[in-house]
Amino acid sequence: MGSSPQARGLMGALMVRSLILLSLLAGAVVGGRNQVRHYNFDVEYVFGAPDCKEHVVMGINGQFPGPTIRAKAGDTVVVHLTNKLHTEGVVIHWHGIRQLGTPWADGTASISQCAINPGEVFTYRFLVDKPGTYFYHGHYGMQRSAGLYGSLIVDVAEGEREPFHYDGELNLLLSDWWHQSVHEQEVGLSSAPMRWIGEPQSLLLNGRGQYNCSLAAQYSNSSSKQCKLRGGEKCAPMIMNVQPKKTYRLRIASTTALASLNLAIGNHKMLVVEADGNYVQPFLVDDLDIYSGESYSVLITTNQNPKNNYWVSVGVRGREPKTPQGLTLLNYLPNSASKLPVSPPPVTPRWDDYNHSKTFSKSVLARMGSPKPPRFYNRRMILLNTQNMINGHTKWAINNVSLVLPATPYLGSVKFLLNHTFDQRSPPESYPANYDIMKPPVNTNTTTSSGVYRLKFKSTVDVILQNTNAIKANVSEIHPWHLHGHDFWVLGYGEGKFSKNDEKKLNLKNPPLRNTAVIFPYGWTALRFVADNRGVWAFHCHIEPHLHMGMGVIFDIEGRFVRGIPSEALACGATGRMMTKDGKYH
Amino acid sequence: MGSSPQARGLMGALMVRSLILLSLLAGAVVGGRNQVRHYNFDVEYVFGAPDCKEHVVMGINGQFPGPTIRAKAGDTVVVHLTNKLHTEGVVIHWHGIRQLGTPWADGTASISQCAINPGEVFTYRFLVDKPGTYFYHGHYGMQRSAGLYGSLIVDVAEGEREPFHYDGELNLLLSDWWHQSVHEQEVGLSSAPMRWIGEPQSLLLNGRGQYNCSLAAQYSNSSSKQCKLRGGEKCAPMIMNVQPKKTYRLRIASTTALASLNLAIGNHKMLVVEADGNYVQPFLVDDLDIYSGESYSVLITTNQNPKNNYWVSVGVRGREPKTPQGLTLLNYLPNSASKLPVSPPPVTPRWDDYNHSKTFSKSVLARMGSPKPPRFYNRRMILLNTQNMINGHTKWAINNVSLVLPATPYLGSVKFLLNHTFDQRSPPESYPANYDIMKPPVNTNTTTSSGVYRLKFKSTVDVILQNTNAIKANVSEIHPWHLHGHDFWVLGYGEGKFSKNDEKKLNLKNPPLRNTAVIFPYGWTALRFVADNRGVWAFHCHIEPHLHMGMGVIFDIEGRFVRGIPSEALACGATGRMMTKDGKYH
Repeated sequence: MGSSPQARGLMGALMVRSLILLSLLAGAVVGGRNQVRHYNFDVEYVFGAPDCKEHVVMGINGQFPGPTIRAKAGDTVVVHLTNKLHTEGVVIHWHGIRQLGTPWADGTASISQCAINPGEVFTYRFLVDKPGTYFYHGHYGMQRSAGLYGSLIVDVAEGEREPFHYDGELNLLLSDWWHQSVHEQEVGLSSAPMRWIGEPQSLLLNGRGQYNCSLAAQYSNSSSKQCKLRGGEKCAPMIMNVQPKKTYRLRIASTTALASLNLAIGNHKMLVVEADGNYVQPFLVDDLDIYSGESYSVLITTNQNPKNNYWVSVGVRGREPKTPQGLTLLNYLPNSASKLPVSPPPVTPRWDDYNHSKTFSKSVLARMGSPKPPRFYNRRMILLNTQNMINGHTKWAINNVSLVLPATPYLGSVKFLLNHTFDQRSPPESYPANYDIMKPPVNTNTTTSSGVYRLKFKSTVDVILQNTNAIKANVSEIHPWHLHGHDFWVLGYGEGKFSKNDEKKLNLKNPPLRNTAVIFPYGWTALRFVADNRGVWAFHCHIEPHLHMGMGVIFDIEGRFVRGIPSEALACGATGRMMTKDGKYH
Repeated sequence: MGSSPQARGLMGALMVRSLILLSLLAGAVVGGRNQVRHYNFDVEYVFGAPDCKEHVVMGINGQFPGPTIRAKAGDTVVVHLTNKLHTEGVVIHWHGIRQLGTPWADGTASISQCAINPGEVFTYRFLVDKPGTYFYHGHYGMQRSAGLYGSLIVDVAEGEREPFHYDGELNLLLSDWWHQSVHEQEVGLSSAPMRWIGEPQSLLLNGRGQYNCSLAAQYSNSSSKQCKLRGGEKCAPMIMNVQPKKTYRLRIASTTALASLNLAIGNHKMLVVEADGNYVQPFLVDDLDIYSGESYSVLITTNQNPKNNYWVSVGVRGREPKTPQGLTLLNYLPNSASKLPVSPPPVTPRWDDYNHSKTFSKSVLARMGSPKPPRFYNRRMILLNTQNMINGHTKWAINNVSLVLPATPYLGSVKFLLNHTFDQRSPPESYPANYDIMKPPVNTNTTTSSGVYRLKFKSTVDVILQNTNAIKANVSEIHPWHLHGHDFWVLGYGEGKFSKNDEKKLNLKNPPLRNTAVIFPYGWTALRFVADNRGVWAFHCHIEPHLHMGMGVIFDIEGRFVRGIPSEALACGATGRMMTKDGKYH
């Protein structure tokens, strides 16, 4: 991270702005001019062509990706969701929104609510208290992979200003795409032996990629042919139009099913200013790593040769990439979008250059003035991430327990003490001391469970995510873990097994607040959060097939005392049955 | 229908048996030795290869087709159905079982019950009062097309005997198969413009067909290559093993999504003795037409050269066939199954030889002693079958109304007078007198509705199904209509528009009792039934995509007075919500 003139300019703009802002931030975020913003979402399958090849996608109001929700901090967002699928239930999770006081609106099937049945309408109503870059997506089966996602952007409250200046804004929602249907992917993953979904066929930027061709074929000597797109096609890249000599905020979120990504813009450095809806200590990068479930804002200044356009490229990290770059153009107006850049698209760092990734992740630190973590924790759990087997089925497990979701949503079960609906034993909070994380598990057997961790309201909880070797020797994968209902502080990343000695290396000074954090191969990541939002919340690997294979845990934060759950949220399973007197109508 | 020695032998056997049986039939069918037969059905997707090409299929307990249910008349069948799908609801309809007094067990989503959610168990419990050849299948979205079906065979009650003799029994469940997933088919059918599913890739006998090859390639000069199957493959034909000089009952049922079929056995005539679970006046045929939703029993005598095996072939009728014959072998033991017949498989009659089809259908008449229809009807409705358009979407409509099912099952809505859950206006009972059925509709517009016909309990209802020209000129399709909860008498078939003059041609003497009857192109079919089973019942075209496009009506037979509905059947939609007091938990 050098200090080019470009960088110094950005830094300067930012510091001035910060001083102004600090004085403005005295007022409450939730002011008197907050609005209720209504959206009607019809979810249904439509024919799309995310990567130029026609495919059924899960769309909203006929669009893929779904419409962007835009609100101001302090507003209430109301989404009337109509399920227009034929036989499938559906829910939508508002990723990064903490759902303060509305745990039933978190949109997680089997956890916060019943899946919405075909033909039914469910109304999500929640406060967006904090400005930032968020997104929403399906959270039932693997419907996110089927294309059920969109952006959710929260601006600062009316009358407030962001702590940095920019002239314009651009938005990139990143995803990955397979040609095999999600239904078939699910069957394969659940089969014995498992059939892995493989690497994605395409990377999508705002739902657009190119499978049979490359936008940048003429720069390479690869075999892929040049795309012949006029720009009106469903899969034509969404061009990022900019004026020269301006500063833009580029919002980037990743809702990939699998791929860890790296984004770079030819000739342009990026100043990272926000991560997961929290301001960070600004830092400059040439390229940005982003894992599924994460979001960033970066500032870019269009101070390059205005006669040229520049590539925006996205590549795969952390897995041997078999997927072509995702591409679009940063188009300096008034240049034509058909004017191709003079140099080839930036190349992603080597997929297994983990030092590059670690340097990036560790650079994300809280902006001055951000809330600090409590100095001490009330409870610490160590969660060992292992790949396992059950009767020939491949699973992922945490402390040797692979998560299986119950038919009745946890929130209803804990609220009404329906103890038969899920496993009442809590999973273990640590793993055997003699476990060798550098080797495949000695015993690959695991158990499934629907058990939950019960957390005290307002307690401070540490989670040490401990990575290990998978079943195959010399393989340890990246897992981005996402917490619902809360942000956590990322206290640190380390190599090997977390031990007492690592304790003092934890960053209690300026750890970033996030909702998603990655564990690197053979390493650990330490998180701290205050369990101050009553409800039942998922904490899970955000890789869609990994969650499908059991890679998650459930936190019950005194869900028993949640009040005001709308009955529509729980009109299924044991909570649905509970509502009748003797099981028969009269 | 000649009177070969074979025929005379069969007829003789039948008459003797009839006399014996008549004296036995005095006792009630429901005797003291009736059993309760329990089945556990786990519904989930599995990898199959119905026609040798691997495909995801909807299986039960890992099997496709699902397990055969076998019971005796008077028994109670109990099926504990667990939904192991990931995001889809499911129900199973017990096709041909009238559900006397148990309308909630009919297994029709949105009509008799809520779809069973993933992870949930629903128990179907119903009386099988009448011996016969039945089957079961999914009745939600197009899950039947996805492979959710199996046989249901009811033998005569303990101590009773069938009214004909046979030495052994064979069972053939016929279906058709597409390589496009059902989810994609559904999206295509619902799109504007509609994407038609086309003709099936394969015909399946007991879930087995051959796509890339033919079992009988060596007889033809077609381009299809000879199958190389060892017999252990998932798609290898299920060989029909027989002993020479015996009589076999061959049960045949069709659960096709689209195809009307014709079945023939090389060198063997068939004596038709049962249709849709009702005994018929036996008649001999060389080949048998069977439409989706129908079932037959035929007797065959293995009196041909015992050194040879014989082809059993199934072909398409009523639509220009683009699907190869379905084939299996009638294997005279102890011949090897690898001994191929000396002559090629029987050829299906020309697809548009409707006279052949009509002759067959009209030959189905009630066996002597069968219940006769009431002489007069209380109400007669004429149902015009038209193809229509709504905003670019292609629909099928009845009297210009295209059926759309509500989110709350009708049975609950009518029971609890939840009038807001569906259209309270009943659809029309006839169509304009000046409608020209020989031409495409002058006005192709139609409306959708969830309205029902309300029928008086125990009233006698006539339904005249009136066929017309579809949207395209000179096209009129076959539609097999299936009634739930009742059998009807087929009073007759006719050409053109049904008129007063046709009244006297109706057969009130020995019309067959059936649950499915076809309308031929540009013709009418007259049905009569006594609405003596309270509940809400579907009456619809059994072609899966046609029903999906609105081709059905709903009969409410005093569902208001149904008692004993298990609450699990209605724990969704407005009936689910009704169960709470003020919409909130406390």
